[in-house]
Amino acid sequence: MRLRNVKGASEKIENSNYMILDPSSWKGNFARKFGNSNPIHIEIGMGKGSFLIEMAKRYPEINFIGIEKFDSVLVRALEKVEGEELPNLFFIRMDADKIEEVFEKEINTIYLNFSDPWPKKRHANRRLTSQNFLKKYDSLFQKDKRILMKTDNRHLFEFSIKELTDYGYRIVDLCLDIYQEELENNVPTEYEKKFHEKGFPIYRVEVWKEK
Amino acid sequence: MRLRNVKGASEKIENSNYMILDPSSWKGNFARKFGNSNPIHIEIGMGKGSFLIEMAKRYPEINFIGIEKFDSVLVRALEKVEGEELPNLFFIRMDADKIEEVFEKEINTIYLNFSDPWPKKRHANRRLTSQNFLKKYDSLFQKDKRILMKTDNRHLFEFSIKELTDYGYRIVDLCLDIYQEELENNVPTEYEKKFHEKGFPIYRVEVWKEK
Repeated sequence: MRLRNVKGASEKIENSNYMILDPSSWKGNFARKFGNSNPIHIEIGMGKGSFLIEMAKRYPEINFIGIEKFDSVLVRALEKVEGEELPNLFFIRMDADKIEEVFEKEINTIYLNFSDPWPKKRHANRRLTSQNFLKKYDSLFQKDKRILMKTDNRHLFEFSIKELTDYGYRIVDLCLDIYQEELENNVPTEYEKKFHEKGFPIYRVEVWKEK
Repeated sequence: MRLRNVKGASEKIENSNYMILDPSSWKGNFARKFGNSNPIHIEIGMGKGSFLIEMAKRYPEINFIGIEKFDSVLVRALEKVEGEELPNLFFIRMDADKIEEVFEKEINTIYLNFSDPWPKKRHANRRLTSQNFLKKYDSLFQKDKRILMKTDNRHLFEFSIKELTDYGYRIVDLCLDIYQEELENNVPTEYEKKFHEKGFPIYRVEVWKEK
C-alpha cells in the first residue's frame, strides 16, 4: 500500500511550501531555514505525517523536519497541512541512507516510529537502528544525541535495544507496553493506532548519548 | 503463600546433604566443595528449585548453587531432590543481601528468575538488578560477569534493562516474549508456567560484562 502511486503526487510535492526540495544546500544551516535557533527534531520515515504534524502543533518552540522517501505517503502529509500555518515544520523527500549529506551538527532529536523491520538477517543493516545507521547519525547531532523510538515489532525492538546500548547509548526511558501506562504526552502515529487496536503491545524507548 | 510455615522445615534443612549450612566458611573455595573446577552457576531466589534442579540434571559439567531465604520453599526443593544423586547441586539458605560474605571470585553465571519486583520506588534498591545488588555481584565473579534473567513483571524488566546497561553490562540476548520463540533450551520455573498460562509474556535477557 505504501508504494501505491498517487496521481499528481510529484506536482503537489514540488509546489508545496512545506517541502525542502534542495535539502543538501541547507546542510549545517537549517536554523536559517526556520529563522530561529530552536532545537531541530527530525522523524526518519514519517509516513503520512500524523505524528510530526501533531508534534509541530503542540510544540511551536521546537522545529520539526519529516523525512520520507515515498511520494505516495508524503503527499498525504502535505494534504494534512494544507491551509495550516506551521512555520516550525518542513518535509524532505529522501532516502534515510543519504542523511549525512543533508544535516550536520544541527539535530537535537531523532524519532524513529514504526520503522521498517527488515526481518531478514541479511537486511539487518537497513534497519534504522543498526550500527550502520547509528554511525550515520553521529555527525547529525548538534550536541548530545537523543533518539526516541516506538514500534509494535518485537524483533525490531529487541534488535534495537541491543544495537543502541552496544553503541554506547544509555536508556533514559523504556516501556514495553505504552498503552498500559499514562499516555498524556503520547502522540500516536497512524500505524500505532492500527496495531494497538489489534491488541499488540507498543514498545517505546528513549536513549541518550553524551557528545 | 511463600511465607507459610512448613512443619519440620528446619529439621529437614539441617539434615539434608544438599544443604551448605556454613556457606561463608567455603568462601573462595566452593570448587573444593564440588571436588572439581567446573564453572559455578548460582540462582538467587530459587524458590522451590524446579529450574535449578532441572539445570543440574541437564548439565552435569556445570556446578549449581541455589540460594533461597525462605525455609517454606527451600524445603520443597529438598523434597524434589530426595533420593536423587546430583553431586553438582547444593543449596544455601540465606538473604541475597549477604551474598558478598559467601562467594568470592568463583562464580561464572547468576540466574535471576521471577525475582521479587519490589514495586514501590522506595524499595528499588531491594530489587536484585538494582545498582545496589550489581555492585555486590562484582566481587563474586571469577572472570567475566554473566547474568541471565527471566520475569513476567514488565516494570521490573524495564528497570532491569536500564540498570544492567547503565552498569556497563552488554546485552547478549534479549527476548520480550519467549513463548513466541523456539524454546528447546528453556527450563521453566514454577512461576513461569503459571504466568505463561495466564497469557502474560515472559521476558528474558542475558547480559555480559568483561572483567
